[in-house]
Formats: sequence, structure tokens, C-alpha cells
Amino acid sequence: MQELTEPRDRLLLGPGPSNVNPRVIRAMTMPLMGYLDPTFLKVMDDVTSLLRQAFGTSNELTLAISGTGTSGMEAALVNLLEPGDSVVVGVNGLFGGRLADIATRCGASVTTVSAEWGQALDPAAVEQALADAGQVKLLAVVHVETSTGVVQPLPPLAEAAHRHGALFLVDAVTSLGGVDLRVDEWGIDACYSATQKCVGAPPGLSPITLSPRAVEAISGRSTPVQSFYLDLLHLQRYWITDRTYHHTASMPMIYALREALVMAMEEGLENRQRRHERNAAALRAGLAEFGMRPVPPEGIRASPLTAALVPEGLEEAKVRRALLNEYGIEIGGGFGPLAGKIWRIGLMGESSQASHVLTLLHALETLLAREGVELASGAAVAAAHRSLAEE
Amino acid sequence: MQELTEPRDRLLLGPGPSNVNPRVIRAMTMPLMGYLDPTFLKVMDDVTSLLRQAFGTSNELTLAISGTGTSGMEAALVNLLEPGDSVVVGVNGLFGGRLADIATRCGASVTTVSAEWGQALDPAAVEQALADAGQVKLLAVVHVETSTGVVQPLPPLAEAAHRHGALFLVDAVTSLGGVDLRVDEWGIDACYSATQKCVGAPPGLSPITLSPRAVEAISGRSTPVQSFYLDLLHLQRYWITDRTYHHTASMPMIYALREALVMAMEEGLENRQRRHERNAAALRAGLAEFGMRPVPPEGIRASPLTAALVPEGLEEAKVRRALLNEYGIEIGGGFGPLAGKIWRIGLMGESSQASHVLTLLHALETLLAREGVELASGAAVAAAHRSLAEE
Repeated sequence: MQELTEPRDRLLLGPGPSNVNPRVIRAMTMPLMGYLDPTFLKVMDDVTSLLRQAFGTSNELTLAISGTGTSGMEAALVNLLEPGDSVVVGVNGLFGGRLADIATRCGASVTTVSAEWGQALDPAAVEQALADAGQVKLLAVVHVETSTGVVQPLPPLAEAAHRHGALFLVDAVTSLGGVDLRVDEWGIDACYSATQKCVGAPPGLSPITLSPRAVEAISGRSTPVQSFYLDLLHLQRYWITDRTYHHTASMPMIYALREALVMAMEEGLENRQRRHERNAAALRAGLAEFGMRPVPPEGIRASPLTAALVPEGLEEAKVRRALLNEYGIEIGGGFGPLAGKIWRIGLMGESSQASHVLTLLHALETLLAREGVELASGAAVAAAHRSLAEE
Repeated sequence: MQELTEPRDRLLLGPGPSNVNPRVIRAMTMPLMGYLDPTFLKVMDDVTSLLRQAFGTSNELTLAISGTGTSGMEAALVNLLEPGDSVVVGVNGLFGGRLADIATRCGASVTTVSAEWGQALDPAAVEQALADAGQVKLLAVVHVETSTGVVQPLPPLAEAAHRHGALFLVDAVTSLGGVDLRVDEWGIDACYSATQKCVGAPPGLSPITLSPRAVEAISGRSTPVQSFYLDLLHLQRYWITDRTYHHTASMPMIYALREALVMAMEEGLENRQRRHERNAAALRAGLAEFGMRPVPPEGIRASPLTAALVPEGLEEAKVRRALLNEYGIEIGGGFGPLAGKIWRIGLMGESSQASHVLTLLHALETLLAREGVELASGAAVAAAHRSLAEE
């Protein structure tokens, strides 16, 4: 067992993790410190301040939870919901379903508003559910549904939530750092993400931010938060206010997140969003030459993640395996109703590069031709090139 | 903000994190991979197998939770306890208190058996509590209480738990990899730890193992586990059985844990325990020359962590600050009733080295002399030397 040979480098173009910049890898190797070391507290302050910029918020309660994206989802729900609270959850993919699952485990009364996988939620249906449920504490939706590549327009839902006196919770796991997201301007009360997608760091932390209204809701609870590990008022005391011990944060992960956020700010959030859009457009132009179209209709396609239907009759898992084994490239398959039918191709954070789009299309064309798919040789990379050159 | 100069290396001799070997740091920088990449699954298999060796168990459900030690504590409790279940918790320090806090958040009926901070739990008192409470589901105790440095003898408590039909849960955060721990032989049903103490990796994961009896208790629950993120049967499916997606594990943390465990097995668990004992004995011989004695009585002093009373009248925080600023050495202060009265000195994992003991005693003597403590010059390092030479 002692001999794990250095594995071959991967080009990570799946639903996450994505590749990270060598600056971020190097940051992980900085000296470990005590969890209350003044220098480490300064690093935490930097992370808090950079996360506020990334989220577009001035929320005091902004920090990184010591767990992956799902721990952020759970933190938001267990802090905001008490047994018996009414919550409306939008479900148009795997992660909306997960929100509903966790809300149920909180003892909340859960109403789901569904849309087909690959479609956005209908604001009118959400409004109706809020009206029917009555006294709703929380509306929870996913910004970019990683299982389908749909980006949900948020402002109408925020308005609907607030009209009905509900807090508005948004899963920004696949959007933060890659898609326009404005927590304060849009009226989002709770928003969490993950580090391994558009943020550009390895997996391991979950950035989260809560509005003063959401913090007030937590302070006013009549029951204790069911999780100590994810108790946000405790975490706020460690991260932001009196620096009391709660748990031993992971220094390497926090160093990495800090460096990734510094790089995002050097690039500029808008430039970064445009980069994600430009490379997604090139990818889609190329995939069209394979006869592959994205699952979501135009207008709600998220640039970080393209879920596209594979050519009819193709043994898709075989092609993905060959892509990994022969080219060292990872892309993802589908979940649930889309299993076996789609590929999920992520161009997120450091992985969103024009050169990666060309490399992937080149490899895919070779493998698809081997599987007997009829193709015009070189058409996909040429289409991607033209899309990139248009800019 | 962009310019974080490389911080000075720290000698970490506090209650954790401890220093880690450069091999472990290098392991973190191996290529990121997909969470279901066959090569990564092989790494996870290695970790599972190495953790079983470290815990002394053949339990199938053995894995590393994507969170710090407290997430392991919470995972054990939320999976084993249902609302209304009766649990007996031993409390003789901060972490026993935390067990009771989390058990309460699970809706359990919690009976605490207390001992003074610095003392071990009395098995007779535990037995009595088990008898009085009736139908106890779980007895939960801390092996090495990080707030006091007490090591709790476990076999009598395991026997008491089983005599009363209760499962036996042990917090091994500060013992795994540094102190004799035999999960199967002693009859421990649930045991969790952390990576940043005697295991020798950075903080960020929580190793955990559950006996078949404990797994049966989870399978037989009548209510869902209140946490999705920490749902151990879900985690078992990702880590061990059908490899279904649950969350995106942190590759750098798991690479690091694997390497640290490989190093522990190269050294041998018994050799490693002896190393921790030898260096702790040298430290205590040196501290005695400053008039400092460990808080726990002889016989229950844990070798990884020495909590010792500081000289009367000393402004202890000032000395710790100087130690960090002038020497780059971290040690810890006390919590709760011991705040301001003790230092907690960890010699754990890679930080447990004879040279570190001498370096610390040299620095402390210099700083104590500056504070006016009367000392025989060089007596502490000489005493440590003699203790080491005796072996």
C-alpha cells in the first residue's frame, strides 16, 4: 500500500472539483498555525472580506464552514428552520431535492414546487405555493442546478419570498465566482457555496453569508439549532466577533481559499463571468457539431456547467472512461432521469480556458468517430475557434 | 490584502494542530481528481484500511468524515441517538461537556456523570448512572480530555456499558495514533478522532469507526438521522459499498491523511506510543524544575498533552505571547475553571520530538527568568536530557 505512484495530472472538466492554479496549491503548503494565532486570524479576516466582495454583500455573518458544499446547505437550513416551520423548496434537479430532504430532517413542513429537470422554476408557481402554504418562514432554491445546468433567475423569486414575509435562501454552489450573483441587491437572505467550482480552490470548505434579517431569525429561535458543528452564531463568534474557540479550522483549506479569492479579485468578477460565458459558448458551438444540444432551453443555460444530450444510441459511460484513461480528461454523467442520457461538462474557475475547450472537443471527436458517430472531421474545434474569435 | 508574506514557520506544541511531516504536505499537492475517479477510490480504500489498523478494529464502517473532530463527535451522536433516547455522558472537561451539549440537541435524555477537571471518571459512578437511568442507549466518554490532559481508562467503562445493554462511544480525538487504543478488544462501539493531533496530518477530517452493533442500531432507527451531511449509512455507501455520490470529498485532505497513516504504520503503533511517552516524560521532568506539575494525578496523565499548572502569580498569557512572537513556538492556555492557571503543551504526532522538548524548555526558562521566576539555570533542559538518556 505504501507505494502510491504520483497519479497523472487530470484535466477536470466535470461538475467539480475543477483544476486549481499552482498559486492556490502552493498556498496550501504555508506553515500550519494555531487556530487562534494572530496571523491566522488575519488570514480569516481576509477571507471574510473577500467573500463579501464575491457574494456582493455587506453581511457581517460571512465565513467559510469547515465542510463541503452540502455542509453549507445543511448549515443554512438547520439554523433557519425550527420544527414545524413552513418552507417552500424549488425542486428541478438533484440539489433542489437535497434541500427538501434536509429541510424534512429539520422537522419543517416542506412544500415543494417542481419543474422538469432542465427547466427553471416558474415564478408564478412559486408565488402560488407561498400563498397556499401561508406563514412561510423560508423559500429555498438553487441558483445553478449542477445536475442540469439550469441557471434560475433569482430577483422575481426574492420579491415573491419577501411579499409573503419569507426569508430567501439560495444555493450558489455552482454560481459563486462564475455567474452574476448579487446577494444584497437581489435581497438574498442566506447564500452558500463551495470552493471547488467557480471559486477556484480545492473542495473542503463552504462559504456562506446571512443577512441581518436571517441572523435575527436565528437569534429569535425558541429551540436550539440541532447542529452544534454548524451553529452559525457559534461560528460567527469564532470567525468574526470574540474569537472564541469552536473547532480547529483547516489552515491549508483556508489558505487556499484566500489565494483563490485574491486571484478572482485580480481578474475582476465581471471579467471572470465573461470568461465563463465565452468558453461555454465555444464549447456549445463545438458540441452542436456532434449533434449535442444543452438540456436547458436558451436563456437559462448556466455558463459554468453544460449538461448536453449525448448522441442517440451512444454508450456514453464507455466514452467517458476512454476520455479519462486515454486523455486524462474528466467529464460527468447524468443523475436520476438524465442518467445515461447526458454529459455534464464543467468549465469552472481555473478549468474555464479556451485551450481546454479545444482539447476536449479534439478528444471527443476522436472517441465519437471510433464509436461510429458520423462527423465532419475538425468541424467541432473549428466551430469553437470561430466562437472564440467572434469576441 | 494581496500581499500575505509567507508566515514564519511555527513549532506547534499546543493542543493541536501539530506540525506535519513534509511528506504529508507534499501529498496534499498531488493532482486533484473527480470524487469517483478510480484512482481516488483506491486512495479512499487505502485510508479505510489504514484507519482500521490505527483504531484496532475490523469494523466495516470505518471512514473519514469531511469535517474536523467535532463533526465526528456530532456524526456519532446524531446517528446513534433518536429523540427520547437515554444517554449517559461522562463530563470531566470541555469535550465531555460538548458531548452532552450535542446529545441534548439530538433530543436525547441526557444524564451526566461528572468528575473534577483534571480527574478521571469513577467507573462506580458511571455504573450507578447507567443503573439509575434505565434502558440507556449509549454511554459516551472522552478518552484523552484535551482540556485537562487526563487519559480515561476505558475497559471498565466498556464493560459497564455492555452490562447495561448500552452502546459505548469514545472520543479519541487526542488519543488515536499516540495512545494505546483498541476498539475491538475493548468493546468500543463508536469511536471518532481528528487528523491534526497524534495522527500527523493537517486539520480537516474526522476518522470514525462503528461496530456492527452500532450500525444495527442506526439501521433500526424509527426516525431519520437529523443530519444528511453526517448520515453514516449514506457515507458508508460512498466510501465503502456502492460508491454512490454523497458529497465531494476533499482530495488534498484525504491524500494527506493517507500519507500520515502510512508513516504511522512505518513507525509502528507501539513505537509511536512509546515515542509519545518518552518525550512527555522528558517534558514533565523539565517542567518540574520550574515548579510546574501536571493537573492530573500520576497514572492518568496522557502522553500527547500535558496540562500543567503555571507558577503562582505568573501572567501566563504574556509568556505565551512572547513564546510565539520571539521563538515561533505555540503552546495553549486553559479553558473554563483552568483558564489563566495552566499551560497545555502538546507533543503529538510529528511534534513529539526530543529536540522540541529541549527547545521549548530552553525558551521557557529564558522567558520565566525574565518574568522574575527563580530558577536554577539550565536545570530544566538537564532534567529533560536525563529523562531521555534513561531510556
